[in-house]
Amino acid sequence: MSDVKLEDIVSLAKRRGFIFPGSDVYGGLSGTWDYGPLGVALKRNIMQLWWKMFVDDAEDMLGVDAAILMNQKVWQASGHTETFTDPLTECMNCHSRFRADKIDMSASCPTCGQKGKFSEPEQFNMMFKTVTGPKYSSWERKKAGGLEAHVVFKNENGEPEKQFDLKDSFNELGGFMFYDATDVSYLRPETAQGIFTNFKSVVDTYYPDMPFGIAQQGKAFRNEISPRDFIFRSREFEQMEIEYFVRPDAWEPAFEQWIKRVHAWCDALGLPAESVHELEVPAEDRAHYSKRTVDFEFDFPIGREELLGLAYRTDFDLRNIERVSGKNMEYRPKDGGPAFVPHVIEPSFGVERALMAVLSAAYTEDEVNGEKRIYLKLPAYLAPVKVAVLPLAKNKPELVAKAREVYAVLKKGLGAVMWVDTGNVGKNYRKMDEIGVPYCVTVDFATLEGGTKDTVTVRHRDTTKQERMSIDGLLEALK
Amino acid sequence: MSDVKLEDIVSLAKRRGFIFPGSDVYGGLSGTWDYGPLGVALKRNIMQLWWKMFVDDAEDMLGVDAAILMNQKVWQASGHTETFTDPLTECMNCHSRFRADKIDMSASCPTCGQKGKFSEPEQFNMMFKTVTGPKYSSWERKKAGGLEAHVVFKNENGEPEKQFDLKDSFNELGGFMFYDATDVSYLRPETAQGIFTNFKSVVDTYYPDMPFGIAQQGKAFRNEISPRDFIFRSREFEQMEIEYFVRPDAWEPAFEQWIKRVHAWCDALGLPAESVHELEVPAEDRAHYSKRTVDFEFDFPIGREELLGLAYRTDFDLRNIERVSGKNMEYRPKDGGPAFVPHVIEPSFGVERALMAVLSAAYTEDEVNGEKRIYLKLPAYLAPVKVAVLPLAKNKPELVAKAREVYAVLKKGLGAVMWVDTGNVGKNYRKMDEIGVPYCVTVDFATLEGGTKDTVTVRHRDTTKQERMSIDGLLEALK
Repeated sequence: MSDVKLEDIVSLAKRRGFIFPGSDVYGGLSGTWDYGPLGVALKRNIMQLWWKMFVDDAEDMLGVDAAILMNQKVWQASGHTETFTDPLTECMNCHSRFRADKIDMSASCPTCGQKGKFSEPEQFNMMFKTVTGPKYSSWERKKAGGLEAHVVFKNENGEPEKQFDLKDSFNELGGFMFYDATDVSYLRPETAQGIFTNFKSVVDTYYPDMPFGIAQQGKAFRNEISPRDFIFRSREFEQMEIEYFVRPDAWEPAFEQWIKRVHAWCDALGLPAESVHELEVPAEDRAHYSKRTVDFEFDFPIGREELLGLAYRTDFDLRNIERVSGKNMEYRPKDGGPAFVPHVIEPSFGVERALMAVLSAAYTEDEVNGEKRIYLKLPAYLAPVKVAVLPLAKNKPELVAKAREVYAVLKKGLGAVMWVDTGNVGKNYRKMDEIGVPYCVTVDFATLEGGTKDTVTVRHRDTTKQERMSIDGLLEALK
Repeated sequence: MSDVKLEDIVSLAKRRGFIFPGSDVYGGLSGTWDYGPLGVALKRNIMQLWWKMFVDDAEDMLGVDAAILMNQKVWQASGHTETFTDPLTECMNCHSRFRADKIDMSASCPTCGQKGKFSEPEQFNMMFKTVTGPKYSSWERKKAGGLEAHVVFKNENGEPEKQFDLKDSFNELGGFMFYDATDVSYLRPETAQGIFTNFKSVVDTYYPDMPFGIAQQGKAFRNEISPRDFIFRSREFEQMEIEYFVRPDAWEPAFEQWIKRVHAWCDALGLPAESVHELEVPAEDRAHYSKRTVDFEFDFPIGREELLGLAYRTDFDLRNIERVSGKNMEYRPKDGGPAFVPHVIEPSFGVERALMAVLSAAYTEDEVNGEKRIYLKLPAYLAPVKVAVLPLAKNKPELVAKAREVYAVLKKGLGAVMWVDTGNVGKNYRKMDEIGVPYCVTVDFATLEGGTKDTVTVRHRDTTKQERMSIDGLLEALK
């Protein structure tokens, strides 16, 4: 378990512009988060590192980017329409709803305090539903009042078959929507299916050698009953997934190789090896189609929790597509051997969890000159800002001009360089520490004259040590 | 007008794995598109070029990444809930629905041929609606049959206020959803509002100098009545938007400066200057709050159409947020002057349109040795694959090994390098031309021995000229 507290991470993330609650200015929207200037830089760095490592630099990988909205048959075939559910219970006194497996149903309602009024749990589907195309009717009320409805589904002979009576279930600001069931679409609950649905197109146009992987990054959405733990379990999140296609008899060595590739990724994130744990998921906890699953857990501030997963999915998904689409998902080997439906190994990475792990591993407190200091010990290639340039005095034009020159050179060479010209240098060092800037370059009076002319102070984040360096070689040295 | 045909672009995009119809394996989902290995690379290159140019390399810009799902108040404040609509008409004979301004309502129905049965046009809101949280009821039928419904909205005294009777409007596979109107959320129809909602958080945590911009890239969704023209008008697309905040009296020079920055972007995409046109939008066609709008149009294969827009939005959006949230959106100048609500200039870029313009501008046909040749004249930094390495013969291990060596060096140095070892070299050159690979490196028998030992043939895409180069300096030369 990490000894960093979650509230310290949340507080730093908000204070310094990494991560804000979603729609904050309007009181928020539960389970959504917005990334500020530093957060988006860190997130992009993580996502680009992944793409470079697993797609651009790999020889066995291709990328895709499928739409978030997909034909509903995707989710019928994958089983999500039927089984992507959590148990839901409602307090019949106050109509608050809870995940039945996360509360004590014999106790009092957490909202109204009434005891034992919970309804029998129902399976609640976590896919966000929407309707595409112009064929629907909907209405919402803007003022409080009741809503009553009587709905009858009739069979093909026009006889009543099933009916619903809703009376004041939505008794404040009710709304309804009627639509053709064929127009229903979902916000994808995972990116994986966008890879499987493109398997045939990729093979037909690209015909890669076997084994090969298809990789995708993108948003996914789950209507969690109770979003929790900061960005750990939110309703909107970003995934990075790979489906790695192998010959059915070759899955075991490929799985072992993927264990190594996943560890290399954790290393690249700067996560200490001793905080990353492999959990061999026992058969009874695995999805029914999976013959092996290893969860990679990390010592988060909230405890040891899943960081990413590695699952052997057999030919489950491609077979489902064959069944529902009627199309052939076989791969024809280049050596002329018999065609086969590939088996699949799936490493599935969550961006938010990676980011939370990176922040947790980087968050450090120490003491400098008798004062507590907070800093983010981020690897330089992940740091949102690589270098800060600080003119020591703002009211000395010569000094500011010189600092501007230094800034211009570094900015051109490194991109993510920050100009910091307000407040005092000591305070600014602490600010830069908190956002994980590896180096602060200070232009001071000694830069302007004497034996130290054209040299600057370079301060190192982790050690707080300072050294004087010549402006000439600065960019190269910092690179 | 471009002399490239849209069907040539669509055909090349599908044939070579740039862009596929979304959910293709299940018969598609209208208005959605999936990017294959080359498409995702090209799209990423465009998006990263934008981010580098407008965020990383700029001194006046910060990035954000807001959630797609936002509090519904965002869209009430911005006016989207009321006015983000297209006129919709229904043929009362066959119940097909159309955009009323895109068909001739005095003519026959394009679907069933019945004349003059169109309903009075209604305003159809183009935001995709969804419901967040577990408080809703929904049901869909799986077999054909009728659906009848009687819904009553009551006022705060429990008296009927408005009622709806639906009889067989959804007479095949009906579905319904009842929910609390406060739980409604939308798939954002633009990324811009995710910037405005974060304005205050960014200023509070970052306090940038004025003027400054906030930039965002991400998905947006519009439930178009009739998606059309390939990726030009789709239901799901990717935006790159900037809100540039200025002093109210300083908008004009900033606007002029943005016209220049936009042209620089078009240049960077490799678009010929003569195909990019500024359209000064007249007052009567502008949004009511905009005092100046310039559309940048491009000569697409479908005609001269909007590529991107530049609009002066005054303080319309920040004032709306003040009105609905009750919060203060003023910026406090660092020089101690009076606080003010900034005015805004908005350059708004569509990724798909940029990509379609890039493909159109790059698509070229010429004749080589009496045969028609198609190639993509992409700028090298946008090309999905930078270099292809081709061993001349597959059955000569020594030659393949040497080619592998060359490939390994180039792959390490350039990332997007392709290994092509099937088919004959001439055909492969044509393939590489079609996907816009700037250079093909061929390892042949002359590479192995004699005076040409350790040299390769480098073929240039645009000229088809070949030159022999030493393997030693190859990586540097190609860079």
